[in-house]
Amino acid sequence: MRLSQSLFVTLREDPAEAEIPSHKLLLRAGYIRRIGSGIYAYLPLMWRVLQKVSRIVREEMDATGAQECLLPQIQPAELWQESGRWDTYTEAEGIMFSLQDRQGREVGLGPTHEEVITAVARDMIRSYRQLPLHLYQLQTKFRDEIRPRFGLMRGREFIMKDGYSFHVDADSLKETYQAMDGAYRNMLQRCGLRFRAVEADSGAIGGSGSQEFMVLAEAGEDEILYTDDGSYAANVEKAVSQPPEAQPSGFKTYEKRETPKTDTIEKLRQHLDCSATQIVKNVLYQVTYDSGTTVLVLVSLRGDQDVNEVKLQNELTQQAENYESKTVLSLEVPDAAAQAKWASKTLPLGYLGPDLADDCIQSAKTIAPKFLRLVDPTAVDLKDFVTGANESGFHVVGANWGEQLTLPKNVVDLRKATAGDQSLHDSKQILQTARGIEIGHIFQLGTKYSQAMGATYTNEQGEEMPLVMGCYGVGVSRLAQSAVEQSYDKDGIIWPVAIAPYHAIVVIPNLNDEAQVEAAEKLYQQLNQAGIETILDDRKERAGVKFKDADLIGIPYRIVTGRALKQGKVEVVQRATHDSQELDLDQVVPTLQQWLEAST
Amino acid sequence: MRLSQSLFVTLREDPAEAEIPSHKLLLRAGYIRRIGSGIYAYLPLMWRVLQKVSRIVREEMDATGAQECLLPQIQPAELWQESGRWDTYTEAEGIMFSLQDRQGREVGLGPTHEEVITAVARDMIRSYRQLPLHLYQLQTKFRDEIRPRFGLMRGREFIMKDGYSFHVDADSLKETYQAMDGAYRNMLQRCGLRFRAVEADSGAIGGSGSQEFMVLAEAGEDEILYTDDGSYAANVEKAVSQPPEAQPSGFKTYEKRETPKTDTIEKLRQHLDCSATQIVKNVLYQVTYDSGTTVLVLVSLRGDQDVNEVKLQNELTQQAENYESKTVLSLEVPDAAAQAKWASKTLPLGYLGPDLADDCIQSAKTIAPKFLRLVDPTAVDLKDFVTGANESGFHVVGANWGEQLTLPKNVVDLRKATAGDQSLHDSKQILQTARGIEIGHIFQLGTKYSQAMGATYTNEQGEEMPLVMGCYGVGVSRLAQSAVEQSYDKDGIIWPVAIAPYHAIVVIPNLNDEAQVEAAEKLYQQLNQAGIETILDDRKERAGVKFKDADLIGIPYRIVTGRALKQGKVEVVQRATHDSQELDLDQVVPTLQQWLEAST
Repeated sequence: MRLSQSLFVTLREDPAEAEIPSHKLLLRAGYIRRIGSGIYAYLPLMWRVLQKVSRIVREEMDATGAQECLLPQIQPAELWQESGRWDTYTEAEGIMFSLQDRQGREVGLGPTHEEVITAVARDMIRSYRQLPLHLYQLQTKFRDEIRPRFGLMRGREFIMKDGYSFHVDADSLKETYQAMDGAYRNMLQRCGLRFRAVEADSGAIGGSGSQEFMVLAEAGEDEILYTDDGSYAANVEKAVSQPPEAQPSGFKTYEKRETPKTDTIEKLRQHLDCSATQIVKNVLYQVTYDSGTTVLVLVSLRGDQDVNEVKLQNELTQQAENYESKTVLSLEVPDAAAQAKWASKTLPLGYLGPDLADDCIQSAKTIAPKFLRLVDPTAVDLKDFVTGANESGFHVVGANWGEQLTLPKNVVDLRKATAGDQSLHDSKQILQTARGIEIGHIFQLGTKYSQAMGATYTNEQGEEMPLVMGCYGVGVSRLAQSAVEQSYDKDGIIWPVAIAPYHAIVVIPNLNDEAQVEAAEKLYQQLNQAGIETILDDRKERAGVKFKDADLIGIPYRIVTGRALKQGKVEVVQRATHDSQELDLDQVVPTLQQWLEAST
Repeated sequence: MRLSQSLFVTLREDPAEAEIPSHKLLLRAGYIRRIGSGIYAYLPLMWRVLQKVSRIVREEMDATGAQECLLPQIQPAELWQESGRWDTYTEAEGIMFSLQDRQGREVGLGPTHEEVITAVARDMIRSYRQLPLHLYQLQTKFRDEIRPRFGLMRGREFIMKDGYSFHVDADSLKETYQAMDGAYRNMLQRCGLRFRAVEADSGAIGGSGSQEFMVLAEAGEDEILYTDDGSYAANVEKAVSQPPEAQPSGFKTYEKRETPKTDTIEKLRQHLDCSATQIVKNVLYQVTYDSGTTVLVLVSLRGDQDVNEVKLQNELTQQAENYESKTVLSLEVPDAAAQAKWASKTLPLGYLGPDLADDCIQSAKTIAPKFLRLVDPTAVDLKDFVTGANESGFHVVGANWGEQLTLPKNVVDLRKATAGDQSLHDSKQILQTARGIEIGHIFQLGTKYSQAMGATYTNEQGEEMPLVMGCYGVGVSRLAQSAVEQSYDKDGIIWPVAIAPYHAIVVIPNLNDEAQVEAAEKLYQQLNQAGIETILDDRKERAGVKFKDADLIGIPYRIVTGRALKQGKVEVVQRATHDSQELDLDQVVPTLQQWLEAST
């Protein structure tokens, strides 16, 4: 590519719209342009990066025997109604763009393709002989994000690889799931990324087990907890750990104490001069289900611990059928206005007890909510503990389950694991924290979609069985940007060689010097002929501008036909290290070939 | 690919949803599945075909120096409002899917990308030094078709290559336009298609000149007129020709005649015993503009000729500014209900004169329409002609322009050229007709979009000038299906070798015969290693089923490890001709290599 004949425009200033380094750099270096909120044009250099990432993804997928296809982006509402996700995706979370076509039929723009592929499988898979089967696609997906940001990191239109596998049973699924774990690790390694595979929450996709692939970077939206020995790593949303041991309580006698102005654990702890581990904290949530039912949920856990709302949300989804519901529409800590609808008086928040009396909740008001009590194991184990007295300014001390208080029936892990906790699997290992960018997620879906949509096969015994499914996604455009987030310096991007848009750039410092031009043109030809993808900077610009631009766009090797040309040499600079050396003209191609082989 | 491990399901019966052979065959052979109206899943075999077509398209585009990028599918309404196409595309024609995002902002799903690319150019192109420039993309497009049909031929979601070029002037544009003409011819030839390049109407895209590439097929939705010597070819919508000569009129005297029951030209001609070429026919249209204005348009042309409504629509768009409008919303022959709104009596349709009196149009009714008279050159040249008397059951004969009738001011070519007419360029050449499938369209846009959207560059003299633009589209998914429409037989598809999903299929007639299996496995390995893309049919099916399926899916070469194996031979069948021959095992790879080289 000749820069003089390309759409190549770099910016000197950081664009105001960009917050994180990779976003700024991709805009400044002319890789992307914003067209609308969360919507970007991929310009020619970016498109080459995306194509290189896609090629690596395809090669790794094909190597596992998966077959590529392409499913529609426009998806009929009926399919999502069958799986029960239409309302959640279009209304509750509103993550799916939806519209009516000219015939008035509702359709959505695919954020994911479980429904479509299950419909195809239902139509085409009849027998166990056709299984296992794995189809994948590389495609632009859509999500109407509440807050699109960070360029390609959280866009409303983005490129994904999504694959779906079908199996006779969970064992077969696990085999493919393991193969995908391997394929994903290969992909990320080949792309030159530092990453970690972590246990993950399955979220709205559903299913039994799932794992995320996190590219490590400060700007990552996710927190990862991991042990140094590699035996454990999980998204904080999903992470489990051993909490610190509780201190033995000094309150041997049960009594109600006046504890003015102690509506936080810290204030209470100071007032009573006790440890937060001796307190049972009670957090009230107001939950709305899709059926319209309101449920008040009181979570009791140890005072030094926090509620993991992802875990809570999952538990509430499990409980949904008790309320003739499918999904949780909202989960919030109720404010005074919410309380006024269902409580006879303002609740003594900060002083709630695990037995928050039913008489607080007045059924004659607008909404007569259900009431659900959940307790975390950290609270179950306490003895002689402190907790709220359901009266403003009062707590009780020396309380015990089974004596003054009834232990809630539902004991559920709802606490947030944190850095510094011991690993649940090995107490010598302490959890560390890191930030990550989620670029891959693999799921064991099981029969969630096949059962809902009636996608079955006939087994060897002639019985009709639901297909067992897995799904596997990689954010291709996000991956490309995350490579930049991991690898840049003050001068610009430093692309990993495997996904750099070009391998080399030949810079002509002075276009008026015929010898420079001639040597550069020759090198440009030779390098490209040798399969080394090379740009020629033949623009009418000052040498300094050209060097700055070459650094900014991050091409791994820069070749300069400068002063040394008189000695038959050119300068070759490695972008990552700024190492510079002079090479004989005829050594440029073989040297770069060596470097490229060594680096990919 | 092993068929036993693939999503491979063929149908014995023609699916009810399919009307044309290619659609039936792609469904039956398991290439596509319908997900919704005009929306298809491309299954693995189809995806390979589409990838092969895409590769050819990319190679030909890259060879011209065009650069690939990817623009967003979601497009902000503001950009289309700037170009003035939002209302036409979303409301008048309703061809663009549109929706409101969660912030209530209107967006459309791109059916084409002139607006987006012009916005990018406006942002990035400053100087003549950056020109010419040509960007293209391969992308799924969306059109909310009134009547989606014929599978991938007229879908609501389809794959296009669209490219946009930017120039300093019309000469530079023409160079690229010519290069695209060449590139498109190469693409189609390489894909193995019979096609014709024809002059075309530019429609809603706009601009001065355009050319379509038509794949010839009976099921084509377009009619082409062409001369055998290749000097002329055009879409009938755009075609011009020399009409047959008019016969001299016998009506020397002007008079009004009673002509009962002669409301068609044929009846009138018989009644008066004259030639249709002696009659001036007057056709009334009711036109609604986007401003809400209704215009009655009376088109006068020779009795043996028909109105080309595409030409009429273009003329009316030209006239739009006279009515403070931009576009024509509808164009229809008014029925009694329409007439009741603006005519004082039922108009004597079938007996209208070119001077349809204003007193027929009663301005006191609901709508006070404007009145526009247009006359085609075929009517202008007539003398002593017959025409309507504006009274039911009456015509006038021996009429002349400038005597009894005033020639309308607007003389415009509005007639439909038809097969049998003489070429306008060479009267010895007679127009022939053929059906075609439009798979490519190239446009000289000029400054339509750059002026509307303020996309300028600075020329050598330092003046700010609007960018001169071209655009170039190929329907990739439509092209793939049109190849089938051109090439099939009673047994199934016959893919051109260049875009067949695989080159060869090795069929094992009897899986219980170890020698057959062993030979087939070995050939399967050898062929793939030699770069001959090969399927292995290792399914537990009868030999007959396998042969039928191989024919149906249309793989160019079938290799059967059958009886001749005892003599160290296999049967090799060419799909297109059904020619069969026995080859020594070690001759299979070199023979197929030869055939492949010869055919691509």
